[in-house]
Amino acid sequence: MEKRFVYADAAATVPTLPEALLEYEKTAREIWGNPSSQYSVGRAARRRLDECRGRMAELLGANPRRVFFTSGGTEADNWAVVSGARFMKERFGKNKIAVSEVEHPAVINAARALEREGYALEYLPVTPDGAVDIERAAKIIDGEVGIVSVMYANNEIGTIQPIGTLEKMAHSVGAYFMTDAVQAVGSVKLSFRDTGADMMTLSGHKFGAPRGIGALILSDGCEIEPFILGGEQERGMRAGTENLPAAAAMTRALELSLENFDDTERVAGLRNDIAEYIINEIPSSHINGSMKNRICGNLSVSFDGVEGESLMLLLDSRGICVSTGSACSSGAAEPSHVITALGYGRERARGTIRISLPRGATANDAEYIKVCLSECVSRLREITHI
Amino acid sequence: MEKRFVYADAAATVPTLPEALLEYEKTAREIWGNPSSQYSVGRAARRRLDECRGRMAELLGANPRRVFFTSGGTEADNWAVVSGARFMKERFGKNKIAVSEVEHPAVINAARALEREGYALEYLPVTPDGAVDIERAAKIIDGEVGIVSVMYANNEIGTIQPIGTLEKMAHSVGAYFMTDAVQAVGSVKLSFRDTGADMMTLSGHKFGAPRGIGALILSDGCEIEPFILGGEQERGMRAGTENLPAAAAMTRALELSLENFDDTERVAGLRNDIAEYIINEIPSSHINGSMKNRICGNLSVSFDGVEGESLMLLLDSRGICVSTGSACSSGAAEPSHVITALGYGRERARGTIRISLPRGATANDAEYIKVCLSECVSRLREITHI
Repeated sequence: MEKRFVYADAAATVPTLPEALLEYEKTAREIWGNPSSQYSVGRAARRRLDECRGRMAELLGANPRRVFFTSGGTEADNWAVVSGARFMKERFGKNKIAVSEVEHPAVINAARALEREGYALEYLPVTPDGAVDIERAAKIIDGEVGIVSVMYANNEIGTIQPIGTLEKMAHSVGAYFMTDAVQAVGSVKLSFRDTGADMMTLSGHKFGAPRGIGALILSDGCEIEPFILGGEQERGMRAGTENLPAAAAMTRALELSLENFDDTERVAGLRNDIAEYIINEIPSSHINGSMKNRICGNLSVSFDGVEGESLMLLLDSRGICVSTGSACSSGAAEPSHVITALGYGRERARGTIRISLPRGATANDAEYIKVCLSECVSRLREITHI
Repeated sequence: MEKRFVYADAAATVPTLPEALLEYEKTAREIWGNPSSQYSVGRAARRRLDECRGRMAELLGANPRRVFFTSGGTEADNWAVVSGARFMKERFGKNKIAVSEVEHPAVINAARALEREGYALEYLPVTPDGAVDIERAAKIIDGEVGIVSVMYANNEIGTIQPIGTLEKMAHSVGAYFMTDAVQAVGSVKLSFRDTGADMMTLSGHKFGAPRGIGALILSDGCEIEPFILGGEQERGMRAGTENLPAAAAMTRALELSLENFDDTERVAGLRNDIAEYIINEIPSSHINGSMKNRICGNLSVSFDGVEGESLMLLLDSRGICVSTGSACSSGAAEPSHVITALGYGRERARGTIRISLPRGATANDAEYIKVCLSECVSRLREITHI
């Protein structure tokens, strides 16, 4: 088969959509005033920023007054978890934080920092398909818990969490419910209002916006403190000169990804096709996480006796980009905390790769991935057995 | 005089330089991989990011390993002050923070948040020309102080601070010395090493880079904790997918602003010309801050019996953009903390406007500002006296 380039790491980032990049560039050139400036050039920038905020709110089922732009998903996650926990402790003396075992490092590491400050941190375990174990969660989420944070969809195995049930559980004990929707926005049709969550975070570059822009969305009743302090931008909730070109580009990217939404089903079909091929044609291979409640392009798969890192590098030499786990965990010596949370050993975690097909992936891409995967896994197993 | 458009609020923001915007767009299109991804597309992004970091370090007299990209100046200021203070308290039990009275809200509000946590916050007073009063500072900066934060140049009155003296004072008591160089970078030729500071912050959009990018620069010995937690980006010091297009654009903008550096003297000449005109031709007008130690384009001026806000709006109707103070303080009902720190009353603070000429300002711009200022001040005084 002729060598081609196939990008299959959409969970890490996707190229900025040409329309979004154009919007960025046009906004930077034409509406360059500081949105906090009071003269006409500044007021024009403020109006455009509020238009973007309104449109984002409309697309996401949120109140525009409760959409706060951030520098990305990680900042938004830190803000939500840290400020939410502090608010609940100061106001109600609630000292516990509960996060799922499979959260992104942006949530887990913020929660650990709070633990070092004296908060009690509890992890919500997951079942082998990657969803939070509801029965065990019910025992953990008690009146001491101030905030429950469970991601909408997992970044490594794509599992869509039972958000509705968890939200009710959190609210029944007076805790905030926060959901990191970084992997979901653009891949799942969602309404913030329908989730019932108090806080939701998203990151633009996961759905075709430029880097450096994301958002924290709050419910009407959710009171938290600002995280980055300074000027009165974003209603005094997020200081720093507003990144209008990036906000405009993110709004455009979200519009496009929702306009074209049927494509997610086609991508899921390609993903299912690859999964079926692997299970039937590559011996001693295992799919990680639920095949039912899963975002469209994601496939996490482990191969016995194969190092995920070697497989990733060999696939790279064939022009295929996949990852061993989260880009945010890369460089870490530890095997994925997500795969081990499913109940599998470190061996299986080390033998794992994540394939995440972007929107617009083709049947030829899927064919090429299947053929190369099969060849590369065989080759690595031969080397190991010599 | 024919109406023209004159932007004279460079301290708030400047339009992105066309070359920087081109660099942004080219990088976003061509080097779009996630710099933390291990395959070739990711590694190419990582290489380009490190090139930018190296070039920024070279231009600013810093160690590339100690240049950390942030989402802007405000985040960098928060990070430096909060993490610096916490480190000094945990390691050495130092519980005091000393910041100048004229710091940007990004520093002052971070310091106030620490005060609410139990730190002792001391303000370093300034003399009527806006520089920190060295004798009084010497009495405040004692062995209990963990961090001293004094900006390189003030954002409202442009005063360049006696950084060298303050750095020695801070180090003589074992405190960190942090300088917010947001207004200085691009307007002053500076070397981080020569400042002797432990930390320095900067913001790209003040010198022609896009919004949403800045940096925190640390000395080799300076140990602080990360502020935004998550993945291992920026050597584990600043989590979140790296904003490579913005970093590349900022590097290009800094190169250009230093290449063209002689222009700052010309701009200072125009500024001096406007200042002289105001003092000689507009009665009851006052320049705020030192005319000697001042960044090139800045002029802060007060007019007795005039509301700064009315003057700003009237000038806007003539096509001139100036501000009443910092864009980051706009919307605040309080008069400028900087002008009142100089020892003047609220009346003078309310009668103040800030003119900040951008690089490339022309003699015609200066002429137009002079004529309109004179007319607008007269008109406002007529209205008041009726």
